[in-house]
Amino acid sequence: MKQPVYLDNAATTALDPEVLESMLPYMTQHFGNPSSSYSLGRVTKSAIEAARKTVAQILSVKPSTLIFTSGGTEGNNMAIAMAVNELGCKHIITSPIEHHAVLHTVEHYAHSKNLTFSYVKLTATGEVDYENLEAQLVNQSKQGKKCLVSLMHANNELGSLLDIALAGKLCRENNALFHADCVQTIGHYPIDLKACGVHFATAAGHKFHGPKGTGLLYVSDEVKAYPLIFGGGQERKLRAGTENVYGIVGFAKALELATAGYDSDSKYITELNHFMRTQLKLAVPGVSFNNPANSLYTVLSVCFPVDSQSDYLVTLFDMKGICVSGGSACSSGDGGSHVMKAIGKAKSCATLRFSFSKHTTREEIVEAVEVAASIFQNKEISIA
Amino acid sequence: MKQPVYLDNAATTALDPEVLESMLPYMTQHFGNPSSSYSLGRVTKSAIEAARKTVAQILSVKPSTLIFTSGGTEGNNMAIAMAVNELGCKHIITSPIEHHAVLHTVEHYAHSKNLTFSYVKLTATGEVDYENLEAQLVNQSKQGKKCLVSLMHANNELGSLLDIALAGKLCRENNALFHADCVQTIGHYPIDLKACGVHFATAAGHKFHGPKGTGLLYVSDEVKAYPLIFGGGQERKLRAGTENVYGIVGFAKALELATAGYDSDSKYITELNHFMRTQLKLAVPGVSFNNPANSLYTVLSVCFPVDSQSDYLVTLFDMKGICVSGGSACSSGDGGSHVMKAIGKAKSCATLRFSFSKHTTREEIVEAVEVAASIFQNKEISIA
Ligand SMILES: Cc1ncc(COP(=O)(O)O)c(C=O)c1O
Ligand SMILES: Cc1ncc(COP(=O)(O)O)c(C=O)c1O
Repeated sequence: MKQPVYLDNAATTALDPEVLESMLPYMTQHFGNPSSSYSLGRVTKSAIEAARKTVAQILSVKPSTLIFTSGGTEGNNMAIAMAVNELGCKHIITSPIEHHAVLHTVEHYAHSKNLTFSYVKLTATGEVDYENLEAQLVNQSKQGKKCLVSLMHANNELGSLLDIALAGKLCRENNALFHADCVQTIGHYPIDLKACGVHFATAAGHKFHGPKGTGLLYVSDEVKAYPLIFGGGQERKLRAGTENVYGIVGFAKALELATAGYDSDSKYITELNHFMRTQLKLAVPGVSFNNPANSLYTVLSVCFPVDSQSDYLVTLFDMKGICVSGGSACSSGDGGSHVMKAIGKAKSCATLRFSFSKHTTREEIVEAVEVAASIFQNKEISIA
Repeated sequence: MKQPVYLDNAATTALDPEVLESMLPYMTQHFGNPSSSYSLGRVTKSAIEAARKTVAQILSVKPSTLIFTSGGTEGNNMAIAMAVNELGCKHIITSPIEHHAVLHTVEHYAHSKNLTFSYVKLTATGEVDYENLEAQLVNQSKQGKKCLVSLMHANNELGSLLDIALAGKLCRENNALFHADCVQTIGHYPIDLKACGVHFATAAGHKFHGPKGTGLLYVSDEVKAYPLIFGGGQERKLRAGTENVYGIVGFAKALELATAGYDSDSKYITELNHFMRTQLKLAVPGVSFNNPANSLYTVLSVCFPVDSQSDYLVTLFDMKGICVSGGSACSSGDGGSHVMKAIGKAKSCATLRFSFSKHTTREEIVEAVEVAASIFQNKEISIA
């Protein structure tokens, strides 16, 4: 059977064969528990510390600021829990278009603790209104409430980007802690975490051809870090539990490959993205796009005309061999995208997110556009 | 170089090649996000649900009571957090020889919440004094305090076993919730979780030749379950985050293999354990054993005579190619075993834990005993 055309790389990516290769020795001969002091344990301990060093160099931070987790969600939970449980944050400023791994966590702690939260104002295209962010920070600071700001570096549905250095500057000026959910950007952009002034940043391996079940939390050494999961002394007592050695090795390898390939891969993917945009405009009358002007190059959020098929678009594409999503993967079946609702496009658009990787081909884009054309009954239009 | 003799299977086990085989398709072609509704997502979703069904059948529970986690530690944390944060437990009864994944978690919540805890009395060999457990339960119940009892099914250092059905009965009679840390027993014994009356039970894949970074939490359907990690709707909204698909598939496969091989493997390992005990007695004058009479067949806890080398025993064995531990892996470097301290043997024994798997050979035991004999300068004794 023909492999489907996979255009949902913001949901997850295929594990890179080279990454798998790097993991296999730790799934076969090197199986020791990294906490054990004998030879078999030292090998896996060294592998973890080498991975940490690799990642630290790429992100321009000290190895000791990095904690390996089970994924982006755990990292987000850990940062928020730490800020409110241990670091004195009494108010959280976030946005209505954050991932549920942030939104539901904020709601949980707001519900169970003496904690308030508010949403920053967004522009019509889903970008942060920095004046509003500053005003909220100043206002909370006046009330003597220490703030955590939790904002994503790139939105996984819209592709909108945060000016992370500007947000970091505003937070610092107002004595707030700053958490950047970088799950869609670490592995896709060169990022200097030190320079951009974040206190916490999260990443997930499976978003850049690394393994599922792996993630990273950066905690700046300006703040004292605390665990979310208690037990053994792993990860400098910050994340207990026998380490997922192969996962950690694979995470670092994937980030290394992503960084090495960044120049050419990002150029290639950006071109694919523009190509699809152009072709869709020709193929589907009335189509428009939700991405702001300067946005994540891996994501194309398409606003198709609303009609009787709008609720089934993902299925219609799937039946024709195209894997694409209506929003984020985790919100499928959740009654529509909270992101599209927040930017007021839930009703006016039948939104599909197409997202690309270095493995995506121009032929696959052509195929997807042809399917779009056929679904929107515009078969006559020829595609370059 | 010769592979070292690995006698630390209670710390972690080698991934079974058949388990790796079962994981590989999900590390190559089947990479879809299980939350995605298209074909590639349905394949991985089905794989997770098939894994859940396999595990449920083996443990005699409903699939809907099982939550896949990142390891034993996360499961222990989740059970305890749920009991104290959401299910009204105001007192925890545990034991001083629990794993740190329980002890440090209990201490954390006791510190941050309005919560007390106490230790159950242990016998000299580290077994639970059930009369004392009952007395404590009755006493707390009289004070109107709802209890969580958190006790391990088998101690990872001593091998002492809990009568889990009896503990479950006492908890139920006193309206307490019961968490059994089964990290050393699930995959090593046939266990009917439904019959033994636990409310929570935890397992970790890497303890029975499954993958690291995978675990399981069982939550009886008599109690309402709550998440520790918030976000997307994965694991019926109880454990957010993109699933570690290959890990889950490998966990189930490993449990399946362990269950199929139980009769012969447990018999074989029990014999190895007895053989080592007998040989050590012949080879090392003054040696004794810490395991209670009826204990975990995979573990032999050896009390070597205390002498000037006591602090370096693990290293001395390592230098001669034997991987063995002084206690649990996670407590290495923590200033000695809290378990040995709790049973009053920290000073009177130089304790080493030898732990076995189906891959351990008689020749390896002979080698380890020879090393023990040489370390304790008793080289003349010949070994059968
Ligand atoms: C009894 C017991 N509980 C919990 C754990 C923690 O499991 P993990 O390290 O896989 O998170 C272990 C092993 O390390 C253990 O032996
Ligand atoms: C922006 C963002 N944050 C967090 C997450 C959660 O990551 P994971 O599902 O790997 O835990 C995702 C992806 O699902 C994401 O896109």
